[in-house]
Amino acid sequence: MSKIKVGIIGGAGYTAGELIRILLNHPQAELAFIQSSSNAGNPIYEVHRDLLGDTDLTFVAEPDFSLSDVIFLCMGHGKSKEFVTANDIPSTVKIIDLSHDYRLKAEGNDFVYGLPELNRETIRQSGHIANPGCFATGIQLTMLPLAAAGLLTDELHVHAITGSTGAGQAPSSTSHFSWRSGNVSVYKAFQHQHLGEITQSVKQLQPGYDKAINFIPVRGNHTRGIFVSTYTEFAGTLDEAVSLYESYYAEHPFVFVTKENPDVKQVVNTNKAILHLEKHGSKLMILSVTDNLLKGASGQAVQNMNLQFGLDEKTGLNLKPVSF
Amino acid sequence: MSKIKVGIIGGAGYTAGELIRILLNHPQAELAFIQSSSNAGNPIYEVHRDLLGDTDLTFVAEPDFSLSDVIFLCMGHGKSKEFVTANDIPSTVKIIDLSHDYRLKAEGNDFVYGLPELNRETIRQSGHIANPGCFATGIQLTMLPLAAAGLLTDELHVHAITGSTGAGQAPSSTSHFSWRSGNVSVYKAFQHQHLGEITQSVKQLQPGYDKAINFIPVRGNHTRGIFVSTYTEFAGTLDEAVSLYESYYAEHPFVFVTKENPDVKQVVNTNKAILHLEKHGSKLMILSVTDNLLKGASGQAVQNMNLQFGLDEKTGLNLKPVSF
Amino acid sequence: MSKIKVGIIGGAGYTAGELIRILLNHPQAELAFIQSSSNAGNPIYEVHRDLLGDTDLTFVAEPDFSLSDVIFLCMGHGKSKEFVTANDIPSTVKIIDLSHDYRLKAEGNDFVYGLPELNRETIRQSGHIANPGCFATGIQLTMLPLAAAGLLTDELHVHAITGSTGAGQAPSSTSHFSWRSGNVSVYKAFQHQHLGEITQSVKQLQPGYDKAINFIPVRGNHTRGIFVSTYTEFAGTLDEAVSLYESYYAEHPFVFVTKENPDVKQVVNTNKAILHLEKHGSKLMILSVTDNLLKGASGQAVQNMNLQFGLDEKTGLNLKPVSF
Amino acid sequence: MSKIKVGIIGGAGYTAGELIRILLNHPQAELAFIQSSSNAGNPIYEVHRDLLGDTDLTFVAEPDFSLSDVIFLCMGHGKSKEFVTANDIPSTVKIIDLSHDYRLKAEGNDFVYGLPELNRETIRQSGHIANPGCFATGIQLTMLPLAAAGLLTDELHVHAITGSTGAGQAPSSTSHFSWRSGNVSVYKAFQHQHLGEITQSVKQLQPGYDKAINFIPVRGNHTRGIFVSTYTEFAGTLDEAVSLYESYYAEHPFVFVTKENPDVKQVVNTNKAILHLEKHGSKLMILSVTDNLLKGASGQAVQNMNLQFGLDEKTGLNLKPVSF
Repeated sequence: MSKIKVGIIGGAGYTAGELIRILLNHPQAELAFIQSSSNAGNPIYEVHRDLLGDTDLTFVAEPDFSLSDVIFLCMGHGKSKEFVTANDIPSTVKIIDLSHDYRLKAEGNDFVYGLPELNRETIRQSGHIANPGCFATGIQLTMLPLAAAGLLTDELHVHAITGSTGAGQAPSSTSHFSWRSGNVSVYKAFQHQHLGEITQSVKQLQPGYDKAINFIPVRGNHTRGIFVSTYTEFAGTLDEAVSLYESYYAEHPFVFVTKENPDVKQVVNTNKAILHLEKHGSKLMILSVTDNLLKGASGQAVQNMNLQFGLDEKTGLNLKPVSF
Repeated sequence: MSKIKVGIIGGAGYTAGELIRILLNHPQAELAFIQSSSNAGNPIYEVHRDLLGDTDLTFVAEPDFSLSDVIFLCMGHGKSKEFVTANDIPSTVKIIDLSHDYRLKAEGNDFVYGLPELNRETIRQSGHIANPGCFATGIQLTMLPLAAAGLLTDELHVHAITGSTGAGQAPSSTSHFSWRSGNVSVYKAFQHQHLGEITQSVKQLQPGYDKAINFIPVRGNHTRGIFVSTYTEFAGTLDEAVSLYESYYAEHPFVFVTKENPDVKQVVNTNKAILHLEKHGSKLMILSVTDNLLKGASGQAVQNMNLQFGLDEKTGLNLKPVSF
Repeated sequence: MSKIKVGIIGGAGYTAGELIRILLNHPQAELAFIQSSSNAGNPIYEVHRDLLGDTDLTFVAEPDFSLSDVIFLCMGHGKSKEFVTANDIPSTVKIIDLSHDYRLKAEGNDFVYGLPELNRETIRQSGHIANPGCFATGIQLTMLPLAAAGLLTDELHVHAITGSTGAGQAPSSTSHFSWRSGNVSVYKAFQHQHLGEITQSVKQLQPGYDKAINFIPVRGNHTRGIFVSTYTEFAGTLDEAVSLYESYYAEHPFVFVTKENPDVKQVVNTNKAILHLEKHGSKLMILSVTDNLLKGASGQAVQNMNLQFGLDEKTGLNLKPVSF
Repeated sequence: MSKIKVGIIGGAGYTAGELIRILLNHPQAELAFIQSSSNAGNPIYEVHRDLLGDTDLTFVAEPDFSLSDVIFLCMGHGKSKEFVTANDIPSTVKIIDLSHDYRLKAEGNDFVYGLPELNRETIRQSGHIANPGCFATGIQLTMLPLAAAGLLTDELHVHAITGSTGAGQAPSSTSHFSWRSGNVSVYKAFQHQHLGEITQSVKQLQPGYDKAINFIPVRGNHTRGIFVSTYTEFAGTLDEAVSLYESYYAEHPFVFVTKENPDVKQVVNTNKAILHLEKHGSKLMILSVTDNLLKGASGQAVQNMNLQFGLDEKTGLNLKPVSF
């Protein structure tokens, strides 16, 4: 098989950088073009400085869809829909969108929600994928087995701490090192935009579920990784819960259920998700750790590409953990 | 008035260090002795190295109670009770214990739980104070006004992130820089030992409350500060809640209710607690930020000493925030 | 004596914030006004959020010099000269400028270089003080005793690592948390603008010195504190060097010479400087640690104010170290 | 060709962990055994927790040399020599030692110093490799082209900042998070043990060089990466220096000379070294950034293994940078 030719739209941001890092080593894919309006003509490594020596590619101003089998849309939220509308993208070119724009089902939206642990078979058949949000990924993984078994009976209580890269590279008061170093804060409590896709997925599996999903997002003072804690009422035993989760994820190669108390750095720079369950009184607590830029964004996007093109899901995603 | 003569037992640990830092500048107190078995004879500044130039005191091996009006017990949990039992402490010497040992009411325990926002008048009359835990302080401050008004009706959902100094200076796998830097993890979920004193205080104000207090403690990768988020069902409006909290804390000089979204570094190196309330659907969320070593430990201990000796609560506690 | 009435010009930046934090607790000074064009009318604590509960002052648009005995200029470099030129500041109002503008001697510049360890007596007599740069302070303290004794004979090799607050609060690519966290980089090697004032001071003490001062400034990934290492040829013994430094700084209350290997956090949130000397072969190495916002900026500015007004140098500067 | 069978001795430490992370994805190598006395029988992923899901191997108590083509010695300094002496290692088994034990030339020491940019051809022929120290690697790379051209004429001034993983996983006062976070300190100034191997290499290329190499090692508050600055007298132009360095490293695939000011995170989690040169007056400054655990330890060890077995130097070392 010839290699998959990949185009990236919006190549200067964090998620595009991660895609490039992965795809440069992907044995079945090659970078056809990387578009960036503001950086056109410049070498990739001048923006993604760690890629010095890894690639001599330069950014292009305009995509040439005829060169690509698939394009990744890595522009900001709202810009993907604009781009798809404004451009005549051939139907033979697959699209993986990393923005929020197509995640929610709607009239005329033919994008499949790209969470392989929820929709793997549909992803394999689909030309258009809406790649999930980073919080949404880590959070849904704590809930899917319960929902699939129809065992959600009460409210869900979710707390999740994210690294600074989740907020992208645009400078802001909360991205300033002097402020964020050693600091903790909450934002968009109970109102985070990822609640939409989370609720949609839970109801896909357990349509009658109508309790609140309470979600407190926290800004941590690390750069990569999301730590999620979820708990809810669960009538069964811990063993039953563990069996449920192990069984649900048995065929999903990036998700692991562990008896050990997890930490975020176990998964940083990997596409893995590690889950851990505890039962306390009537509550089942499920923890998950993921890397927001990989399983929460670009790693999952490549996982989706692999599925779309009939490759093994893990191709190009055996990444060395940074560990420290 | 002559200055309060202070003795410190177990002077080499973090909380003792903070006590010394505060008391060196306290206008109404002076350090009579600082005991440390393992460091006897050595200058204080060899252990608390930032105190170079601030004091020439040396650690003593044995306390001489006759020199002190009050002693602070800064040994590990379990050791305070041993110490009080083994030593013949004159009844004229007040005791402020920073350990867990006397926080829970029990037959023969004459220590008053030293949370001024709960027990200020009793503290003023008491010779023996059990200083609250750091998590317990930040968490109780989010709950006291509701409990005092008898308005707790459902479970409490508490999530709190602490800095590394909360775990003391003994090295452990989770205190190793290479592991903790950039990392997040949970420990003792639903089982943290501070739940005992939290529950005791809530029931002191609202005796009939019998719902679960769900508490997930998180290890953050900062050194100082605790960020607490608490939420529960609340039938009133946000304005009513804010009024309730402002009214409850009106006469408590270290607690502030703010309309702005808070962050931990607002209070680091101060004895302050900042609270922030939001209403989402039927839920009232209360956030608090405190410094675990000050309002969560040694600052509060000095606040208690001030109360015991009839001083203004804030004496010696107008500390310069570090801010960054 | 009535309190010194202080005005601050440019009140929204980092150095102004630190001045306010110090002066709110200064027993002999009071804040008369805090000017900020962009924040006029807003409470101080909305910008310096850690000051919630500490002051109800608001920013003013225009300074009223008649209200103040001294003004601190905390605007950016280049703006102080503009301000002094554009405004008719009464000659009775003392000025302490924290910018670069008046540090170098020049025709018509009547500002005294405000390093008390170099110019204390002159500062006492002077109405106009140019407060030293942060790097410049930490570096000069490693050199002054040698220069005063005429013992500089060869090149000086200086390496200094600064925290992020040294670069102020304007966002930039190098202040972005995602970049700076866990990162190290060098800037303006051999060309840093503080070399001018450093050279000027060294030559004030040892006029014939004409060797290179090689200076490599490093961006660390902490927020506060400067670590300086300086070395040069020194013919004497270590003991002689230590005696020289101890003697030079004996009457300077913020500078300490220690036999222990120092670290930055010994001085963070204090106005102290800690020095440490080692002799290796023919080289004398002198290390210094200071807090760039205090001894390197606002703390030293208050020290200068104290001197100008005949107060004890340490008044209001017994600050609790943050230590962790 | 069948895969290289690899044994690791001392499998629980940081460098062993990195070796395993690399070798699990190395296309031409496979892990034959991982020895650890203290962890025998336990799964690898219980110690190196990020490897959960990547391997089911367990630690063995005793190595079986007959199973391996090469062994990596990852025990502490001093223990390698003990191990080699105590065990009858077949001469057909190649040895790569990551300790200090065999780096210095000595009677009876047949280990080749494993810096490929210095000794590539000899490494290819050698069964026994002494892998360089982490500081030593980053520092030598700044000096080799000058020494090879015989252009070192004066003292070398070296300053290098390392991450915490350079000190290994044993807990100590300087590895405690509460101390090290936000802190900077110097250790072993002018006396670091790596000076021996650095001097040896410089003299290998320029035998007559007899000036001082002044080296100040700094503990940074990051986990991975070494930033080196070196400067010395250089009579030529910057262009000449850049040509010299580019030419020297042209055939060395992991070393890059860049015109941009570098930072440590450009190379974290890679085997790359990035160099940058500046000329200031008569001084040439050379900066280098490397990952202390990869190019400074385990990555370089695999690079050496590749050379020993006739593979492309980069095999298995195209690692995804962590970048943030």
